[in-house]
Amino acid sequence: MIEDKNPQRTSLSELGEFGLIEHLTKNFKLDQDSSVKGIGDDAAVLDFKDKKAVVSTDLLVEGVHFDLSYMPLKHLGYKAVMVNLSDIYAMNAKPTQITVSIAVSNRFPLEALEELYEGITLASKIYKVDVVGGDTTSSTRGLIISITAIGEAEEENITYRDGAKTGDLLVVTGDLGGAYMGLQILEREKEVFKVNPNNQPDLSMYSYIIERQLKPEARKDIPELLKALEVKPTSMIDISDGLSSEILHLCTQSKVGCNLYEDKIPLDPQVISTCEEFNIDSTTIALSGGEDYELLFTIDQADYPKIKANPNLSVIGHMTDKKEGIHLVTRGDEKIPLKAQGWNALREKEE
Amino acid sequence: MIEDKNPQRTSLSELGEFGLIEHLTKNFKLDQDSSVKGIGDDAAVLDFKDKKAVVSTDLLVEGVHFDLSYMPLKHLGYKAVMVNLSDIYAMNAKPTQITVSIAVSNRFPLEALEELYEGITLASKIYKVDVVGGDTTSSTRGLIISITAIGEAEEENITYRDGAKTGDLLVVTGDLGGAYMGLQILEREKEVFKVNPNNQPDLSMYSYIIERQLKPEARKDIPELLKALEVKPTSMIDISDGLSSEILHLCTQSKVGCNLYEDKIPLDPQVISTCEEFNIDSTTIALSGGEDYELLFTIDQADYPKIKANPNLSVIGHMTDKKEGIHLVTRGDEKIPLKAQGWNALREKEE
Repeated sequence: MIEDKNPQRTSLSELGEFGLIEHLTKNFKLDQDSSVKGIGDDAAVLDFKDKKAVVSTDLLVEGVHFDLSYMPLKHLGYKAVMVNLSDIYAMNAKPTQITVSIAVSNRFPLEALEELYEGITLASKIYKVDVVGGDTTSSTRGLIISITAIGEAEEENITYRDGAKTGDLLVVTGDLGGAYMGLQILEREKEVFKVNPNNQPDLSMYSYIIERQLKPEARKDIPELLKALEVKPTSMIDISDGLSSEILHLCTQSKVGCNLYEDKIPLDPQVISTCEEFNIDSTTIALSGGEDYELLFTIDQADYPKIKANPNLSVIGHMTDKKEGIHLVTRGDEKIPLKAQGWNALREKEE
Repeated sequence: MIEDKNPQRTSLSELGEFGLIEHLTKNFKLDQDSSVKGIGDDAAVLDFKDKKAVVSTDLLVEGVHFDLSYMPLKHLGYKAVMVNLSDIYAMNAKPTQITVSIAVSNRFPLEALEELYEGITLASKIYKVDVVGGDTTSSTRGLIISITAIGEAEEENITYRDGAKTGDLLVVTGDLGGAYMGLQILEREKEVFKVNPNNQPDLSMYSYIIERQLKPEARKDIPELLKALEVKPTSMIDISDGLSSEILHLCTQSKVGCNLYEDKIPLDPQVISTCEEFNIDSTTIALSGGEDYELLFTIDQADYPKIKANPNLSVIGHMTDKKEGIHLVTRGDEKIPLKAQGWNALREKEE
């Protein structure tokens, strides 16, 4: 058998803009009842009947939000969709449509964009959202992805950031810090690779945290779960920048304070062991790491019995009077003021 | 009086991401009935009641779609909104909300972004659309703007690209080729400026075409006019890539042919005189220039009496059987097959 040393590379200019759009979008099918018209006209047409529409948008820039040296394009496409769907779930709503715009320099062959769209297509199938529009254009350098997600909700279920009340319990889904520690592993391996390209690292012991970084899942199950449990959160936000930053958003908008208990923050064993390996404090990572795309919400204390047995949900604190401030209560029972030290802050410190 | 030789330059890093978003978006007010919740949560919430929602998105990249050496940032912000609203009007719908995402390198001070947002704010006020969301992030190089426009329409008024029938009249609004010739003037002046920075050009004789390039207006008036005239177009599209490219879109999607009459194409006297000055054929410019953001639509012949007296509308051809093909009928009565030679094609030829 002859090995193909030159995998196919089709130049984007061969296809032209309309050819490229047609090629990349021909597999998108409309499944949502609210998608009246998708790609192919000046605009998509949506019909929400008696429900409310919910809209969110994110822009991802190569070199700022992702590094293609360890982020496979298919995963990038998947993650770009997740980032947006997560915002819709954080409204206690159901995403129904997305638009996908990309700008790409001519260093990318068609096959690279196909991979990116494979990830987008996979995400749209699993999460049952229709791709109804977009824009495909060239960039002078690098890859830029802009996604807008549209969702629907009954008015009475929509959950804003400003509804938390004194005494409410603070609840987080899943566990925290994994995405950031996964990134640390990938960045370390990138440095090792630069020195010795033949090194074949065994990353199996980091598989969970690497997956948290490369292929995060938005919490589709949570709005459904809350509905089934008959719990309407009083406020909700998704964790993209890190737990402390999101708590500050909820507290500021709801005009309340908060006590967060260090010993209640859910951490995966891989996060704990990798933090030990890197000699970093795991609480700091959970507070500031970001990109976990878990949901953070508050509930009335009366709803506690409905959620307490659920392995997906951890009560990590409670809301207080605004004048009491926003604090982390440590394992040693010290009260430390919580600061907004998101993702960007961490990245700047490293550079 | 002491002249301030150093206009204020505030570094973006001083503000931080949340400070920047707060600063740039604090003046956005919600005026549309359908805007339930705007900026400040995970997503915006919209309520279209018994109407359909219409969604369109565009991505603009510095060095590809605009050149800041002759495009003032305020105009760029305005134009970025127009590009999107134009797509909504092309559905015979009314834009109601936009989301605005920007990625910007740190070579831009805060004052530059303020100028950009001034243009966006002005456009949103004049066109009565609410800015309900967005994302502000950094880029490694240059400025990227992604806008998504959302509109509303009664189901029976929505006009797609695929409804043209044999015998329908082809109608265009305004006049064509101005934006492209305005760009030629601006590019020529840029070259002159490089050679002699003290040159103060008198561009007053090109004022209309320069305005067409720098500050285009979307045809807000046309859906309203068509409603007042009781005309429902059978198909519609906006002219972003050039007349011939848009005619091909309508014909392909509607499965019809077309005869376009060269002598009916509306041209402004400044376009004609500037084409003479540059020794370019004005029909070629109207066909391929693009960026005019006029609307192109087809109507049933029975509706001709309703539109014939209107100075905003020109009948430029009629739709034929698909097998007759798509042709330009020249002033010399020759039939030439119409080719898709959009904006990009022209730009590539020049380089």
